[in-house]
Formats: sequence, structure tokens, C-alpha cells
Amino acid sequence: MKIALAQINVIIGDFENNNRKILNYISRAKDMGAAMVIFPELATTGYPPRDFLEFSDFIEKAEQSIEKIKEASKDIAVVIGSPTRNPVVEGKDLYNSVVFLYQGKEIYRQHKTLLPTYDIFDEARYFEEATRWQVVRFKGYKIALSICEDLWNLGNENPLYTINPMEKLMPQQPDFIINVSASPFDYTHAAERIRILKENVKAYQIPLFYVNHVGAQTDIIFDGGSLVIAPDQTVHTEMPYFKEGLQIIDLEDVNGSTTNREQPKDKIPLIHDALVLGIKDYFGKIGFKTAITGLSGGLDSAVTTVLAVEALGKDNVRVLLMPSQFSSEHSVKDAVDLAKNLGIRYDIVPIKDIFKSYLQQLNPLFEGRDFDVTEENIQARIRGNLLMALSNKFGNILLNTTNKSEMAVGYGTLYGDLAGGLSVIGDVYKTEVYELARYINRHKEIIPFHTIQKPPSAELRPGQKDSDSLPPYDILDTVLKQYIENRQGPKEIIAQGFDPSLVERILKMVNRNEFKRHQTAPVLRVSPKAFGMGRRMPIVAKYLE
Amino acid sequence: MKIALAQINVIIGDFENNNRKILNYISRAKDMGAAMVIFPELATTGYPPRDFLEFSDFIEKAEQSIEKIKEASKDIAVVIGSPTRNPVVEGKDLYNSVVFLYQGKEIYRQHKTLLPTYDIFDEARYFEEATRWQVVRFKGYKIALSICEDLWNLGNENPLYTINPMEKLMPQQPDFIINVSASPFDYTHAAERIRILKENVKAYQIPLFYVNHVGAQTDIIFDGGSLVIAPDQTVHTEMPYFKEGLQIIDLEDVNGSTTNREQPKDKIPLIHDALVLGIKDYFGKIGFKTAITGLSGGLDSAVTTVLAVEALGKDNVRVLLMPSQFSSEHSVKDAVDLAKNLGIRYDIVPIKDIFKSYLQQLNPLFEGRDFDVTEENIQARIRGNLLMALSNKFGNILLNTTNKSEMAVGYGTLYGDLAGGLSVIGDVYKTEVYELARYINRHKEIIPFHTIQKPPSAELRPGQKDSDSLPPYDILDTVLKQYIENRQGPKEIIAQGFDPSLVERILKMVNRNEFKRHQTAPVLRVSPKAFGMGRRMPIVAKYLE
Repeated sequence: MKIALAQINVIIGDFENNNRKILNYISRAKDMGAAMVIFPELATTGYPPRDFLEFSDFIEKAEQSIEKIKEASKDIAVVIGSPTRNPVVEGKDLYNSVVFLYQGKEIYRQHKTLLPTYDIFDEARYFEEATRWQVVRFKGYKIALSICEDLWNLGNENPLYTINPMEKLMPQQPDFIINVSASPFDYTHAAERIRILKENVKAYQIPLFYVNHVGAQTDIIFDGGSLVIAPDQTVHTEMPYFKEGLQIIDLEDVNGSTTNREQPKDKIPLIHDALVLGIKDYFGKIGFKTAITGLSGGLDSAVTTVLAVEALGKDNVRVLLMPSQFSSEHSVKDAVDLAKNLGIRYDIVPIKDIFKSYLQQLNPLFEGRDFDVTEENIQARIRGNLLMALSNKFGNILLNTTNKSEMAVGYGTLYGDLAGGLSVIGDVYKTEVYELARYINRHKEIIPFHTIQKPPSAELRPGQKDSDSLPPYDILDTVLKQYIENRQGPKEIIAQGFDPSLVERILKMVNRNEFKRHQTAPVLRVSPKAFGMGRRMPIVAKYLE
Repeated sequence: MKIALAQINVIIGDFENNNRKILNYISRAKDMGAAMVIFPELATTGYPPRDFLEFSDFIEKAEQSIEKIKEASKDIAVVIGSPTRNPVVEGKDLYNSVVFLYQGKEIYRQHKTLLPTYDIFDEARYFEEATRWQVVRFKGYKIALSICEDLWNLGNENPLYTINPMEKLMPQQPDFIINVSASPFDYTHAAERIRILKENVKAYQIPLFYVNHVGAQTDIIFDGGSLVIAPDQTVHTEMPYFKEGLQIIDLEDVNGSTTNREQPKDKIPLIHDALVLGIKDYFGKIGFKTAITGLSGGLDSAVTTVLAVEALGKDNVRVLLMPSQFSSEHSVKDAVDLAKNLGIRYDIVPIKDIFKSYLQQLNPLFEGRDFDVTEENIQARIRGNLLMALSNKFGNILLNTTNKSEMAVGYGTLYGDLAGGLSVIGDVYKTEVYELARYINRHKEIIPFHTIQKPPSAELRPGQKDSDSLPPYDILDTVLKQYIENRQGPKEIIAQGFDPSLVERILKMVNRNEFKRHQTAPVLRVSPKAFGMGRRMPIVAKYLE
């Protein structure tokens, strides 16, 4: 029996186009001789639909999609994720379901049991959990249907749930497992996903067909990498990362498979490809073509601009250089060199005169007071205003160039360099931005060598360097990672050998700057713990402050 | 037996000061002859602690607080909410618990059963639900302990949960119910709370002691209003709204009580008081004293400024007037009149020259193009920059003055008039802002009559009025409320008699401007559905667009 894996990229709430794509994949799968085609979790709506799920109208549209897909299930079974209504008045109003459609009928509907409610996930907000589990019979096979997290309570040191839906299905002796997923990318996740799925195959000794979403939904990036795992835990198939696709697998081939077909999972290339897709889908899905960045001659804006060019093409990216009286000689040259290397349009608008006009107007109020962070921020906000002016006038989206280290400690100006519609490298620590730059330059020098080499600086006062106000980035990033990704407290981090006062200073900076992160653009998520929906912190608080 | 209700205002994560306050209330309750003192839900940590709960160090600090409180429970029972660890490896790592302490010992620990996971609530993210329910015996009484939502599955048309913890406790024949709560304010909530609690008393026929938090935690405002309800459903006691307090109730009095002591619950005065407390606590809890607003002569900035003065005092609020060449004659006069009425400092910084310097620098790039929204936005962002400059130089916090109608449809400039550390009236529709203004002026004209009377305008181009780009506010607000608060889809709203194309236009504006709301300040929540954590929408989506 031939089974098709449909790894698709949909737009949240775009029922018409999503359905057109689904119907097209069904017809292609049928043409290729598949008896069954599998789509991801909540494929009709896109994932995560968030509070749109609370609108009855939205659910009705998903139901109408399923009706149309049902009609297309003539001579091919369609297994697809969609929200369904809970007919019982008690409990949440919805289920997160996978429906099994065949010959124009709904054969079975399995609800999701384990509802992830951590990090970026909010499923307990919307869905009631399954209380019934049943295999589906199809062409002589018995199939265990599961949805994403349903397989993730196995092989964990600290299981999040007290039940395991596969344990309910195994007594019915299924021949294989289907899992429809919405499993977002982070640079550790593809390996972890394979580990967990292998644990399931090891426990149940039957093949597993796993179909994931691909594509970015604002900040959340789905990498695809749909899988077929053979009973001996060999990865029979791993579909490409970051690309849509349809793949046909012969079930009979899977059982005898011994060749491992896993793809490489190197961190920096994965992050690179994820960010490019993240930019591409953000623009494509809201119907914008062109981007603008502020190019300072520094590393962060250089890397962001290169990624934008890869995502959108050189004719769709323009940059603005906005030197101040404090900009170093090399800054403009480095920025121009990069623009020339990329073949993109650049313009230069110095901010000195505008800055002077602010100081003049503010003089009656500021007289007798020293130059301080205020004047630094005024300059950063002039740049923000100029970039947004070009964005408004020419219909470009401003890409934010702040890195994760800066976001963490609040080293940036709200409405200034923190402005922008999308934060490209806000989940990439400064030390990783260097790695990305070297990866970008792997074949030839795209980012000027001098940009990578020089000490980082905001250039907002004479001779300023990041190291004046921040610890060295290698130490800073290590401490931040312990606190943010690993949720270690001060005691635990200090026990690793870091200077206690430094650790306390860094943690305090992180917590005090929550108000800034609250007002910044969505951050493309590439790590297991990104700023945004996945990390929910109080703004007004006194913990570690 | 005398029972003390301790309606306290704590700071999230400020264990030292929270504990000092709790110990002080215990000692006062003891002095007043109470046999028992009841504190709110998660009183040790503050509510909501959000992802701080994922830090073992944070939980340890809460445990240390409980240890100290236990020592203080000599000769007085202390009933208090705090997070506790789940000793079982399966399931979430924490419980949301109420502990019963007496004579230096923990007598019992009841976990929360119903974990709200909707709107602003994320409890399923952190907590495992209770599976054991037991009354506590104290001085001959049997007490049913419950936590907030535990009582809220009764008397609802659409119950969210399939179990009801009181049904587990009633067979043990408790003499009264204690409920420790973190039940946030909205203008409908105090009445709804009493309705639900009366439903419980009606069902179980025993008195109910209910203790709530008071105080604002960033955007979430707790109103207090702790309650004692007599077996005949009379409101024996309702503690004040928006004020800390300790109240002693004699249990014997409650049983015979027939006098209803409910407070008035008029919408506009409640919203007014909530916003004043919201501002006050935001500043007090982060240790700032002074605020700045941009005063345009319009209604929104006038109301915001009056509320700030009420919260912080007239010496702690200053305003900046930033007329443009498009400002009407009356704008400056109206703004100055208000500043004089309030007795606050005002400064005037015209933006014309700065605007000119931007246009001059941008001229080479903009040549030949028409004045459009770009030039409007540049002016709004100059104002944002000036306000933030004063904020930075003098250590004031900028209060945002955008109302809910504008926030909803995106009528505002990111980094311009949408700037600020706290949005004061972002959950108040324009039509309600008028009501607030009239309430503020109830005794004398504080807000100039002309400010209330004139047609709203952003004054960013010649002769501009809000009504040029927006429907009349009474229609707009009604449609918005149906969509936002009541989660009605286009069909349902149109069926109420609104023009279909208008409804579609409004809903599209709301959805398209999610990216702006993502980058704005926390909004003081006064309605059942505010922008912020309680309303989670995708940014990139095509639903109703």
C-alpha cells in the first residue's frame, strides 16, 4: 500500500487557499497511486490559530473545508488534522482532531489526548482532551491515529502527562502508527523529534508515519522533516527541511528497511535556512515584497541584510545608512561595501542636522544638563523615524536587526534600533551571529571582513564600545543561556564558576528590561526558548532585581 | 470564632516585602482576636507569576516564605495560597495550593482542581490538578478549602470543566467554605463573582469566606471586594474595592445575617478607580514617581492626564504640548487650560522645525512624491521621540493615551502616539472615554468643555478629522464590542442590522493591525476582553482579511 506524506505550508485562517492546496495535494497523491494521503495537524486552519479558535465562525469555516476534502476522498483515504466541536456541554468547546476520510465519508475522528501547554503552546486554552481511542481499519490494516504531542510522553525523564494514548491503542494491535504534527523548529528539535519517535517505535514495534507542517507562521517556523520510521528504528524517510513536498512511501518497503536516510542537522546551517524561510513567509503571507534595513557597518545589520536578500532577492531589499557625528570612519565604508557585495540599493541620510534640530528645540528644557543616554536615544529614534518613513513611503517592511544578547539585557533603544516589523536575529546570541556571518562568508567574502573583525559599538557617543557597558559576549551569552534556555537560577549559575556579582547583574538586566521586549517585533524562533509567546514574564516584578 | 480576611496588595516575586506584609497582617489579626486569617491565592509570590514559576529557585523562595509564615501561625490559623511541588514525576511539576497552617505546623494542603486556561489565565501551563479533596478540622469546625476557579464551574450555561471539587467535599459535611482567590477586575466582574458565589452557597447551604487580591500587576488589576456570604445568600460583607484591608468577621454572626452589605457597582466609577490604581501600582511597584504625557488638547490625552494626576499627585505629572503646523487654534489653548486646571507643569515644544529638518534630509529620496501618511507618521514619531527624551532625561514614565477604539482599528502611529510605558485607556472605547470625562467633570470643569465638545482629530494634516477615516464612534464601538468582547463573527454582527460592508471593513482593520498591538505598551485591563495577554491573535493570517 502506497502512503503519501503531504508536508504543506498554509496560511492561518486562509481557508480558501489552504483548501485549494490540500485538494491539489490529494489529487497529486491519487495520480501517483497512493491509497492514502496524510496532512499535518490543524492543516485546514494553519497552526497556531490562537484565539481565532474562539470564533464559532472560524470553526464553521474549518468544518466547511473538511466537507470539501471529504468529497475529494473518493478512492483515496485522506488523514488530516482539523478542529472539531465537542458535543458535550461540559468541558472545552473544541477538540484538536485528526479525521480519517474515505469514499466521501468520515470513517473515524481521533481527538488529541496530550495537549501541549508550555513554551509557545496553549492547547489547553482551547481543547478538551480525548477520552476514546480506537484503531481505524483500512484495506486490511489497523491504524493507530495520533496527533503530535500524543507520542511525546515517552522517553522523557520528567513526563508532563499522566497518561499515554498509545497504551490505549496497542491492545487493539495496530499495524502502524500515523502521527499528524505541528512541531516547530528550533536548532535542537529535529534530532529530538527523531529520538522521541524512535522511542515509540522501539516500544510498539510497528512503523510510524509522521507528517509535519512546513513554513513560518509569524515567529514560529515549522521545518517539515516529515518522517517514516521502520520497526527496527531505522529512519526510512526524512523529508526535506524548510520545503513543501509530497512523498510516496510503500508500506511494504518500510518493514524491510535498513538504510538510514536522516539528513545532517548542523546548528548554524539550520538556523540560517530557518531565518531565510521566516523572512520569506512573513512577507509572502502578508503580501509584501520589499524590505528595508538600517545598515550601520556593524555585524548584526549586515547579517540581517544578507538573510533578507537571500529570502527576498536583491531587488527587493534596500538599506539606509544613517551616520551620526559619532560614527567611525569605517562604518559607512563597511556598510557600503556590503551593499555593493550584495548588489542592493543603498542611500545615505546623515542624522546630524536632524539631531541638532531636536537639541535646539529641547535646549530650553535641557539647559545645564549633561549629555547622557537621552541624547543617545534621540539619535537612535531619529534613525527609527527615518527608516519607518521610507517604509511608509515605499511600502517596505523594516526588518529589526537586534540580536538575542542585546534583547536579553535591554541594550537597545525602544522605538529606535528596536523598531521594525519582524526581528530576524532576536533569537540568535551575538556569539552565534558571528558564526552565522562566517557561514555566510563560507564561499566568498559577502560580509566585509572588517565588519566581523572590529569591536561591536552602538556609536552613539564618542569612542563608545559595547564592552563599556556589557560583559564580554562569550561570558554574557553563556550566562544568558543558562538563565533563559535552561531556567537556572542565580545559585545554580554561580555554582558553574561565574562571578556572583556578574551573574546577579546580568539576571537583573534581563528582568528589568522585560518592558522593552514587550514592545518589540515578533522574533523568529530558532532556539528552544525564544523571546515572545514562548517566554511569558511579568513586567512589574521584583524577582532577582 | 473570629475569622480575618486579609485583602493584600503584593509585588510579584518580591518575597521579602510580601512576607513582611503577610506577617504583619497575621500579627494584626491575632491582636484583633481572630482565630484564623485568610490570605489570597498565590499570596507569597503574587499573581500571576507567569514563567517565574518554571524556575526552581523561585519556588524555593515561596517555600521559604511558607516556612516563616508557619512559624507565625502560633495561636492563629493561617490559610494562604502558594505554589507547591508535585512529588510525583508524571504530570506538571507544581500545584497551585492553599496551605492551612496552625501552631507552627502544616495541617493540610489542598491543591486547586479547576485551572483556568483562557483569557489572561495560563494555569494549565504550570500546574497539575488536584486529585484529593479533604475537609480540614479546626476548633470543632469542618472547613472546605477551595481556590478561586474551583467554585466557578457552577451556574454556568457552558461549564468549562467536567468535574466540580465541591461535590467531592460535600459528602464530608463541611461547616463552611473558604475560597482564596486571584480574581481580576473588569467592570462586569464584581457582580458576576457575587452571582457565582451565591450559586455555590445556594447549592451547599453553608457560609462562604472569599478573599481576593487587591492591586495592579502590570496590566491586570485586582479589585479586592473580598466577600462573606451567609447561608441564605445574603452578602454579609463585601470588602472595599481597590484598597488593602483586614476585616474580622464573627462566624456566628454570619449564620444569622440578613443585611445585604453589597457595594454599588457602577461601570464608569469602577473603571475610573481601577485605572487610577493601575497607574499608581505600576509606578509604585517599579519605583518610579513621575509621569509625562503628550497633551494635544484632545479628549484621550486629557482623560489620561487627569487619571495620572489622581494616581500620582499633581507635582508628579508633567505634560508636553507639541503643536504642529496643522494644529488648530484651540488645541494649545485647551491643553493649557487643562494643565492650569490641574496645576501641573506644562512645556511647549513645537515640532515644525524638526519636521522641516526631516523633510530636508529626506527630500532627495522623496522628491516628486505626494504628502501622504508618511509625513503624518513622521510628525507623530517626532512627538514620540520628544516625549521619550524628556522621559529619559528626567526619569518620567511616558503614559500612552491611545483609546481602545483606536487600538482596535490601528488608528495610531507605531513609535509615535502609540509609544509609552503603560497604556492607560487602551481598554476603554472612545464612547466610554467620553463617559469617563463627564464623570471626571461631575463636580466641576476639570477637562475643558471645548475638549469634550469638539470633533476628534489627529491634526496631522490640514483640517483632518477622525471621521474622515473612521465610522462614527458609536457605531464603530458597538461593532468592535461584538467582535472583541463577544467574539461574534461577521455574519452574526451583520444579522444585528449593521451594514455588511462596514462590518467587514471594521473586522479587517482589527485583524490587519494586530502587528501594531503586538508592539504597544501593556494595557490596563478593565473590560472582560482587553488587548494583551488575554487576547492572543496571530499576526500573519488571512482570516476576515
